[in-house]
Amino acid sequence: MIGGGQGAFIGAVHRHAAALDGLYELVAGAFSSNPDTSRASGQLLGLRPERVYGSYEELIRREKELPADERVQVLSIVTPNHLHFGPAKLALENGFHVILDKPMTFSLAEAKELQAVAEASTARFCLTHTYTGYPMVKEARQLVASGALGAIRKAYVEYPQGWLSTFEEGSANKQAAWRTDPSRSGVAGAMGDIGTHAFNLLEYVTGLSVTQLCADINTVVPGRQLDDDGAVLLRLSGGASGVLVATQVAAGEENNLRLRVYGEQGGLEWQQADANTLLVKWLDRPTEIRRAGTGYVSSFARHNARTPAGHPEGYLEAFANLYRNFALTLQADLAGTTAPPEALDYPGIAEGVRGMAFIENVIASGRSEQKWTEFTI
Amino acid sequence: MIGGGQGAFIGAVHRHAAALDGLYELVAGAFSSNPDTSRASGQLLGLRPERVYGSYEELIRREKELPADERVQVLSIVTPNHLHFGPAKLALENGFHVILDKPMTFSLAEAKELQAVAEASTARFCLTHTYTGYPMVKEARQLVASGALGAIRKAYVEYPQGWLSTFEEGSANKQAAWRTDPSRSGVAGAMGDIGTHAFNLLEYVTGLSVTQLCADINTVVPGRQLDDDGAVLLRLSGGASGVLVATQVAAGEENNLRLRVYGEQGGLEWQQADANTLLVKWLDRPTEIRRAGTGYVSSFARHNARTPAGHPEGYLEAFANLYRNFALTLQADLAGTTAPPEALDYPGIAEGVRGMAFIENVIASGRSEQKWTEFTI
Amino acid sequence: MIGGGQGAFIGAVHRHAAALDGLYELVAGAFSSNPDTSRASGQLLGLRPERVYGSYEELIRREKELPADERVQVLSIVTPNHLHFGPAKLALENGFHVILDKPMTFSLAEAKELQAVAEASTARFCLTHTYTGYPMVKEARQLVASGALGAIRKAYVEYPQGWLSTFEEGSANKQAAWRTDPSRSGVAGAMGDIGTHAFNLLEYVTGLSVTQLCADINTVVPGRQLDDDGAVLLRLSGGASGVLVATQVAAGEENNLRLRVYGEQGGLEWQQADANTLLVKWLDRPTEIRRAGTGYVSSFARHNARTPAGHPEGYLEAFANLYRNFALTLQADLAGTTAPPEALDYPGIAEGVRGMAFIENVIASGRSEQKWTEFTI
Amino acid sequence: MIGGGQGAFIGAVHRHAAALDGLYELVAGAFSSNPDTSRASGQLLGLRPERVYGSYEELIRREKELPADERVQVLSIVTPNHLHFGPAKLALENGFHVILDKPMTFSLAEAKELQAVAEASTARFCLTHTYTGYPMVKEARQLVASGALGAIRKAYVEYPQGWLSTFEEGSANKQAAWRTDPSRSGVAGAMGDIGTHAFNLLEYVTGLSVTQLCADINTVVPGRQLDDDGAVLLRLSGGASGVLVATQVAAGEENNLRLRVYGEQGGLEWQQADANTLLVKWLDRPTEIRRAGTGYVSSFARHNARTPAGHPEGYLEAFANLYRNFALTLQADLAGTTAPPEALDYPGIAEGVRGMAFIENVIASGRSEQKWTEFTI
Repeated sequence: MIGGGQGAFIGAVHRHAAALDGLYELVAGAFSSNPDTSRASGQLLGLRPERVYGSYEELIRREKELPADERVQVLSIVTPNHLHFGPAKLALENGFHVILDKPMTFSLAEAKELQAVAEASTARFCLTHTYTGYPMVKEARQLVASGALGAIRKAYVEYPQGWLSTFEEGSANKQAAWRTDPSRSGVAGAMGDIGTHAFNLLEYVTGLSVTQLCADINTVVPGRQLDDDGAVLLRLSGGASGVLVATQVAAGEENNLRLRVYGEQGGLEWQQADANTLLVKWLDRPTEIRRAGTGYVSSFARHNARTPAGHPEGYLEAFANLYRNFALTLQADLAGTTAPPEALDYPGIAEGVRGMAFIENVIASGRSEQKWTEFTI
Repeated sequence: MIGGGQGAFIGAVHRHAAALDGLYELVAGAFSSNPDTSRASGQLLGLRPERVYGSYEELIRREKELPADERVQVLSIVTPNHLHFGPAKLALENGFHVILDKPMTFSLAEAKELQAVAEASTARFCLTHTYTGYPMVKEARQLVASGALGAIRKAYVEYPQGWLSTFEEGSANKQAAWRTDPSRSGVAGAMGDIGTHAFNLLEYVTGLSVTQLCADINTVVPGRQLDDDGAVLLRLSGGASGVLVATQVAAGEENNLRLRVYGEQGGLEWQQADANTLLVKWLDRPTEIRRAGTGYVSSFARHNARTPAGHPEGYLEAFANLYRNFALTLQADLAGTTAPPEALDYPGIAEGVRGMAFIENVIASGRSEQKWTEFTI
Repeated sequence: MIGGGQGAFIGAVHRHAAALDGLYELVAGAFSSNPDTSRASGQLLGLRPERVYGSYEELIRREKELPADERVQVLSIVTPNHLHFGPAKLALENGFHVILDKPMTFSLAEAKELQAVAEASTARFCLTHTYTGYPMVKEARQLVASGALGAIRKAYVEYPQGWLSTFEEGSANKQAAWRTDPSRSGVAGAMGDIGTHAFNLLEYVTGLSVTQLCADINTVVPGRQLDDDGAVLLRLSGGASGVLVATQVAAGEENNLRLRVYGEQGGLEWQQADANTLLVKWLDRPTEIRRAGTGYVSSFARHNARTPAGHPEGYLEAFANLYRNFALTLQADLAGTTAPPEALDYPGIAEGVRGMAFIENVIASGRSEQKWTEFTI
Repeated sequence: MIGGGQGAFIGAVHRHAAALDGLYELVAGAFSSNPDTSRASGQLLGLRPERVYGSYEELIRREKELPADERVQVLSIVTPNHLHFGPAKLALENGFHVILDKPMTFSLAEAKELQAVAEASTARFCLTHTYTGYPMVKEARQLVASGALGAIRKAYVEYPQGWLSTFEEGSANKQAAWRTDPSRSGVAGAMGDIGTHAFNLLEYVTGLSVTQLCADINTVVPGRQLDDDGAVLLRLSGGASGVLVATQVAAGEENNLRLRVYGEQGGLEWQQADANTLLVKWLDRPTEIRRAGTGYVSSFARHNARTPAGHPEGYLEAFANLYRNFALTLQADLAGTTAPPEALDYPGIAEGVRGMAFIENVIASGRSEQKWTEFTI
């Protein structure tokens, strides 16, 4: 693991996710750019001291010197955005599989360069767009793909949070500090942090691509350096259209990502606050409540649940599904077989590049007086 | 009553709303431009034949000839949009109070002319923006006005329907026929039919005005003549911003108008599907479920409920609240007193003019390549 | 109308319910045992003074002297329980149709006597078990009757309220005063006031009869004279079983009557707080959300809704459905035709007798050390 | 681990729960009474072959021979009920800490004997009543303990499932087979499997004890040997009363454990289907939606959540909280310190004895014609 030392939020989440299914063992880390913090974090996590490193370069160099069956196989990179590209590139170049937190890089240019590196590497790459790991998000994608809803016409995605309603970066909140700092986050704040999740979810479920967008991007809290709020009109491939809302100043909201998609024959609705449910709506018959863990859902939904219906699985399980599917894919590689489509269904480099393109296009649109901005990569 | 003959939807709703509190008696009508239909409708409703007229002109002329204590006092006009202006103007000019279905007129120009007529008339005017009649919408407005949420930053309003997902106007559906016909509806379809409700609700609750908008307006169903779908970015007075969504092609959706508003300290959420509940959200404390009929709500919410908490009141009661408040205001006029603010709180001519301006501005924006369109009247 | 003077709760509800559809006109009343209160109430309601009476005896005698086409046709009796039997009996004996508030009488003996009177009378009788007036309760009954759920095995009904959590009868609350007073309510408090509603709903929807019961009946609030809380184990005809809960000391609860029924193949759930929805659950497929006002519900559900799906109808509409169905039945009688089954589906004398038997049996069981008490009439 | 071989449900759940926080490592097991199955299961789980045993006796004997810092420290026992007592007793007698699945034993007599063993042992004991591991169940208990609701008057707990609506034990369903078999489950079916959870939850949150009960116990599905359905009237210490419902024939229900508790001043409601929410109801103010992961909840709720509000945690996390708290307690023991009360708050031997007493008392009451059965141990 690179990053994720004491006090980090997402590092701990990655560790829970990796641990849940017993398919990963944490054996080495460079947990902080401060060697003392890295060492202390490694100790707390029960690592052997010789495998706790002071930098990602050192980790990769030294682990590579170990015999193949002793060295780390997968590197989880959980640093702030500006520290994604360097370790991911070096890891891939040295044949280590990479699990990288989103958004993929600091800029679209980096993303495209990383894509080239990944394509040239024998190693595999996974980007942790958590929300596509939920069983009922899988079900939603399969439902659209089945054609049962008819051609898709509308997609609405919203991601309201309230935790940046005040000037949190002026307090001791480390999460707020780096996420609102352009030198660490990149050109976008809310749009990078949560807008990319919303964008990814919409494209994943609909199977469509954003082709044009028109954004209203705001910095609501005085003194803040990056956007904390935005709304975006979308045009999608195939003639559909949509709306994306991402805000971190919706005071009183938690983290309620919500997607609605409508086709000619019906629609679907999923929200993280009720993650084990997918509502399926029809023109002339009752809405269905489809539930995770049941016998009637698709193989993709079944594959990503661990318990029978009525045992709620949540955010950590969705995150763990990414780790698990990546592991199953790597195990198939090792066994010389092909992983089943359900295991191969995890976000990768292409999603990362599109996410970075979203960030740059949406910020550009926000600054433009022109209505529609082409989605360019 | 003018319009609302056999087969009409909203005419029956108006009659239920007028009847519920026993404050109105239906005594005369011109229910259809077809005299036979008018007569048959009047008979079904139990009216005396001599007070069922063949046209609104006849009704107003003949009723005016009756002694003051026998003639109708209030005229409900429930015709399609293109037939609002004529009877409303004539009624006001002849001193009859008017209750008019929304949107107020066929065009903004008509609306402004009607406003001038209304201001010159001694008669009162009510526009049936139903949704502001709900007790918990009243509570929402009072909450914002109290300042408890702090300055408003964001407002999201959405009005998804699915009933025009197919080419209904090609069937025998009379509602679909006139609502999608530009010669009867005006320049807008969905935006006029339900977008104006959403717009009115947002301005009513926030107390803010839309100042600029950027609209994506679509006609999704092939062959349709007017918009059936739209999404609009909003800029609001005081620096707030928002999003308005109105669509009639969200297959499987019923009629779920929903509003969310966020200020510096908290937010609120109301939706028609759970109309007796207002969610009030706070930065650092639990969300409150405020309920209609309780003892703790504002005088405006209390005034607009008929039963104790736990006895759900719905759409007809909200509609009836407009009728009731209008009647209480007229009774106060007759008694030479001033109606209390709770009774005076019904939508009027100003809301009607803004609604028509919304229609024309939003359609203009939808056709424009320019991002922001000024909201002009 | 008999009873329902100023300050009464249920009288106003009856008037709204009667008014909503324009099928009744309030023309006469004996609103209070105090002639002054009766007169003042009649004046407020706009009645002609000569048709406001000082007692129900006077009302019935004098109205009967009027020509048949001038006298009242239907008498609504909305007095406290101890004043149900007298006016209902006299009205039926004199050929006036009766709408009576529940529970039907003060005692089971009275109920059986009233049943004999009703059966000997040419007049019709309706008992206002409101909750069976909801469209989705109708749908529930039809679903069970269709056999789609298979043989019914379990039924759970609960009616929690919190308004008697404190010693309200010690305050100026008139509702609390008579409902907790054995000389006006009868042998039961909560079990009579709301337990009978729950009992009626369960028998109505399941089509089964309670055959044995085992009750835990409590008076929770110190000083109270009647039960304010109870739970009852039920055995039902056909081998099913169930639980009935009715309490008025569930602090913080409003009025959330809720029913769940399970058969061999699936189950159903309805609750008043979401009255326009019926959840239908199946062994191996998604739960359905059936909604009032849609095209796919049964003719009974359709008949009892006034608006399309998505326009919530509530308690007053459910109440009005009883009035409307009774009126349609009487109109059919007058026309010499037979009302359709949808109109004839309103609660009558048999339901009233069973409700009174429930009260007496459940209180007896509460006092017994024997486990099961036979349900006897 | 003892039990939990291939095909077992709860064994996998225990492994996820143990893994999630990285506080346990699975190093040894006797996964089946069939040595081949045990070996195969161990291999799949990546254990060293020499630590996969053919029986629990062998495991305990051989592990004890290992040096103290190499042997297993904690034994998870996840066998069917009739195989709980033997390994638990032997483990405790040999100083191994025990995590045991519920219900604790096959009979109350065994439970009391195990209690004596546990009290004489230096080892610690945890019983996996999962549901008390949820953060908002902790919050509920703390809320009651704080006195904010006043003295508790009513408690309703229900646990409806539908998976045994048909004769599943006649199919290949191993879960159904042993859970309906008196030789493996004990005297109770549904009451032992889920009734004990409901009972434990009620006593845990209210802090009250069941003192008397009156049960209706049914075997609904023909051919079944044990109860699959029951409803129980409860009398609680301190004068409160309640109802417990547990059924496995509520066709279409998943696993929706739900608790409601009411005191003099307010009430609370929690259900597993919305596990991160606790509704807190008050006499005269709005219901509060308290949420896991927020800053305002009690230290007990905070301690048992891993992520901020809005990241749903579910069943596996609740289960993992038991494992984590047990581990934290053992770590404190090793460190010679006292674990904080939040860590010590896991179910133990006393809860196990009461659970077994519940089973025997409730089945006895079900067979009795006497109304109230004393709760005896």
